[in-house]
Amino acid sequence: MSLLMENQFCELPPDKAIDTKTFLDTVSHIPAFFDCLGSKVFSIIKSDINGNITKIRAVYVTNPAKYTTLEDIVVAEREAHGAEWPKIGATLALMWLKRGLRFIQILLQSLADGDRDENNPNLIRVNITKAYEQALKRYHGWIVQKIFNAALLAAPYRSNFLKALSKGEEVKEEDCLANMRQFLVNYTATIDAIYEMYTNLNAELDYTV
Amino acid sequence: MSLLMENQFCELPPDKAIDTKTFLDTVSHIPAFFDCLGSKVFSIIKSDINGNITKIRAVYVTNPAKYTTLEDIVVAEREAHGAEWPKIGATLALMWLKRGLRFIQILLQSLADGDRDENNPNLIRVNITKAYEQALKRYHGWIVQKIFNAALLAAPYRSNFLKALSKGEEVKEEDCLANMRQFLVNYTATIDAIYEMYTNLNAELDYTV
Ligand SMILES: CCCCCCCCCCCCC/C=C/[C@@H](O)[C@H](CO[C@@H]1O[C@H](CO)[C@H](O)[C@H](OS(=O)(=O)O)[C@H]1O)NC(=O)CCCCCCCCCCC
Ligand SMILES: CCCCCCCCCCCCC/C=C/[C@@H](O)[C@H](CO[C@@H]1O[C@H](CO)[C@H](O)[C@H](OS(=O)(=O)O)[C@H]1O)NC(=O)CCCCCCCCCCC
Repeated sequence: MSLLMENQFCELPPDKAIDTKTFLDTVSHIPAFFDCLGSKVFSIIKSDINGNITKIRAVYVTNPAKYTTLEDIVVAEREAHGAEWPKIGATLALMWLKRGLRFIQILLQSLADGDRDENNPNLIRVNITKAYEQALKRYHGWIVQKIFNAALLAAPYRSNFLKALSKGEEVKEEDCLANMRQFLVNYTATIDAIYEMYTNLNAELDYTV
Repeated sequence: MSLLMENQFCELPPDKAIDTKTFLDTVSHIPAFFDCLGSKVFSIIKSDINGNITKIRAVYVTNPAKYTTLEDIVVAEREAHGAEWPKIGATLALMWLKRGLRFIQILLQSLADGDRDENNPNLIRVNITKAYEQALKRYHGWIVQKIFNAALLAAPYRSNFLKALSKGEEVKEEDCLANMRQFLVNYTATIDAIYEMYTNLNAELDYTV
């Protein structure tokens, strides 16, 4: 589980404010997660998420002192952009990024919880589908949903996926899942805090692509 | 047909050498073609093709005098990269770019020729499928082929597509098709010349993605 363990998210402070720089540095290791799925098909998703991160970073570097926390950015953009907000800038990028992060979170959680298709114990389609339904499906029109269903066929075997997450090392399955649970603690808390912020600031949109 | 007519390809010289700078300047207008398909689904393809062009340009600008023609680049990379070539650098980018260009060429040619599904005269799925089968299908594994079939459902109506190519102007269908035929002359010759070069230099690969 090196990929995840080496890049753990930080514990949140009591006010759940997320430090922008720390977040960007940690989250920039997440796109590599899609390489663990093993097929070129997923590199498209990797670039979408990479694009989100680049966009947020581009706003951050214009004024690091002003944009100390993620909330600082979203609030500043709300003031700057009027009616176009929140479908703009880093606010939009983070809106989509959090959905991709949530997808990964639910997928890992589902594996850690032992959700399985008993007839196909070495497939992770049930776990991917669960994550997709909870994190993304409602934001996708029926054509992208169909594309998801086709892409699902490229999902790796469970054993290969766990091995890839461990950077190819032979780690015992139980150790791998334990690492996953460890990683999920701060990761989930961070994502929850971003979702909460979007709700509180009324920054969430539900248009479909 | 403004989109195409305003950015026509140049006539080739007798030796069919393609001037790199002219080619890059003209071809950089092609990705906008995918916006005419009207759905966000196709922006993925637009970025793939944009990436190819960026990669070729990046090599060109390192030494414009050395890389006057596209063939100069491919030959120089063959010498520089040994066994990794041709799956590398601008050679790889142009290999894929030409397939995307061929896809567009066959699609336009099929429309200009009046190929139609008589039961659905306002759909262009037959034309898109023809272009896909001739230009791309053999380089795509079965999962990407399935994704293509799903994406095909997002194809625009014929009338909307022609209107988008005319940048929203109400152009008579016959005028639009005449413009298309005009555009196709140098465009097709250019693509043919690139394919010929890849055959002659033994630079073509047929792996699937
Ligand atoms: C030749 C044949 C090919 C035919 C064409 C095929 C084309 C296929 C395209 C399918 C869609 C791929 C997924 C990408 C979807 C993206 O459209 C969405 C929205 O993307 C957002 O859009 C915004 C504007 O609305 C901004 O541009 C955001 O950008 S901004 O930064 O500029 O603001 C951008 O992220 N992102 C998403 O839905 C996020 C997806 C995240 C993770 C998904 C995990 C799924 C894993 C599946 C495993 C089985
Ligand atoms: C949340 C749910 C989402 C789930 C995930 C969905 C993901 C969907 C992904 C589907 C594939 C999209 C099409 C892109 C395919 C690309 O993979 C291929 C090869 O792409 C090449 O690959 C090389 C390495 O092998 C280099 O990286 C090249 O890059 S390099 O420049 O670095 O050398 C690169 O262009 N290009 C292609 O096949 C070219 C396609 C061109 C045009 C196609 C027109 C089709 C129109 C269809 C109309 C109906």
